[in-house]
Amino acid sequence: MKYDVIIIGGGPAGFTAGIYAARGGLRTILFTGSQPGGQAALTHKIENYSGVVDVEGFTLVSTMMEQAGNFGCEISFASVLDVKLAGEEKVVITDEGEYITSTVIVATGAKNRRMGLENEESLIGKGISFCATCDGSFFKDRPVAINGGGDSALTEALYLSNICSKVYLIHRRQGFRAAQILVDRVRANKKISLVLDSTVTALNGDPLNSLEVTNKVTGEKQNIAVDALFVAIGNIPNTDIFKGQLDLNEGGYIRTNEKMETNIEGVYAAGDVRITPMRQVITACADGAIAANSAIEYLS
Amino acid sequence: MKYDVIIIGGGPAGFTAGIYAARGGLRTILFTGSQPGGQAALTHKIENYSGVVDVEGFTLVSTMMEQAGNFGCEISFASVLDVKLAGEEKVVITDEGEYITSTVIVATGAKNRRMGLENEESLIGKGISFCATCDGSFFKDRPVAINGGGDSALTEALYLSNICSKVYLIHRRQGFRAAQILVDRVRANKKISLVLDSTVTALNGDPLNSLEVTNKVTGEKQNIAVDALFVAIGNIPNTDIFKGQLDLNEGGYIRTNEKMETNIEGVYAAGDVRITPMRQVITACADGAIAANSAIEYLS
Repeated sequence: MKYDVIIIGGGPAGFTAGIYAARGGLRTILFTGSQPGGQAALTHKIENYSGVVDVEGFTLVSTMMEQAGNFGCEISFASVLDVKLAGEEKVVITDEGEYITSTVIVATGAKNRRMGLENEESLIGKGISFCATCDGSFFKDRPVAINGGGDSALTEALYLSNICSKVYLIHRRQGFRAAQILVDRVRANKKISLVLDSTVTALNGDPLNSLEVTNKVTGEKQNIAVDALFVAIGNIPNTDIFKGQLDLNEGGYIRTNEKMETNIEGVYAAGDVRITPMRQVITACADGAIAANSAIEYLS
Repeated sequence: MKYDVIIIGGGPAGFTAGIYAARGGLRTILFTGSQPGGQAALTHKIENYSGVVDVEGFTLVSTMMEQAGNFGCEISFASVLDVKLAGEEKVVITDEGEYITSTVIVATGAKNRRMGLENEESLIGKGISFCATCDGSFFKDRPVAINGGGDSALTEALYLSNICSKVYLIHRRQGFRAAQILVDRVRANKKISLVLDSTVTALNGDPLNSLEVTNKVTGEKQNIAVDALFVAIGNIPNTDIFKGQLDLNEGGYIRTNEKMETNIEGVYAAGDVRITPMRQVITACADGAIAANSAIEYLS
């Protein structure tokens, strides 16, 4: 049996691609891997998804999965181990066997790099966040910190300075690896305090109420009272199996055009895994819809 | 009083921009005009919006409006009459006065061109549709017709041929004004019947159950039994007041990059009004989120 489209990845981008592909009449299967839902499913509360006032991430993504299934998208919890994307007939190899398809939509997402602290995972949603745009508003007029020194960390610090009472920017070096204009803006911003040459060494409270920060040069420790720590020390796209086949940037993200087409005809990418101006549930969903539509047009 | 951002247009793109801008700490006002909700609000039933199983268009857009308001986005039902977009201080002139702002997000949408038949408006949602991707699936395994002869009409005919039992393509001329590859595919598709030199002259039934079609050359009339007619005779973007300021294509749509930036710094466009690969509620929402984020970055 041959599929019209195989979707790899069970987050908002993948399920929305499933909704549009199956509803558009394509024979569609989606592989979620062993942990369906993606990063969105780990999000405690989402209040900025248009059309849904307040929802747990897991509930929102489950609804999307249900919708895709209702339209006839097959959903498998198998994990994809390898792909052969060249040629008209593409092969997707999973831990439950091989599948043949005319088109592939890659929606495998990305992971946030962790700091490696003991109670980091258990405090996610209780003071630890990986996304200022997602969660900053929950800490309106309260003190927060951000950990990181790249473009993302500085952009998020500026974003948070519009909302929060105080923003500590904790960075392990003196210098930032970011655009000079962002560095200038951060330095000029009175709400942002720089805590340089320093790393976060302990997370106190549950929910989080303060950080232990250690200066790497002097060895001095200090406690900083904050209600949230935004971790912005990098993201890792899930693109290992696509290396050498799809066109990736130096960070490992997939390059697409606005129709979500990759460098290989009949292969599309959607959501956090691609190079995109914004990584939100709503933008991932739109990517998935566009990718499915491009597959439909390619096949007709 | 000066705003950080003025959003023009009260559909999914505008309200989502409102959610992200206000939640991001910007002083935000949104002008809906006298008929809030945009085209989505006129849609009887939406089943492919990710995360919401089944909803009336009006309800979905109302929820978005409520969310924007909750985050502090001011919402005004005033109509925008003119804009002065050049320079750092932009002016938006409404029927209730002038407003000053640093940035503008244009989300004014587009109108579908109508056939001009008597009961056309009242049959919308009861057999008359302007979007195959939106509504095709409601007519699975049933006969439908499509009216038009351009790229959109042919693309939609091919889309519908995957889902419906039969597709009549009714076009007022012999020749199509569309890409040759689409014409070839339509002619080769056994489910599609061409009804050329012909116009739809009457809509029968409520809900729709057949069309009267008149051949313009012979004057002959015939009745075609269908459950739906998809009208694809063109769209008109609501961009009159932006002419001469924003960069528009020959169809009047606004040109943007992937960050929704237009040719004028601090002015963004989102949703159906811009040149985009897909015009769906979910893609309009994503555009709005990205436009707001671009405004936030520009202002910081």
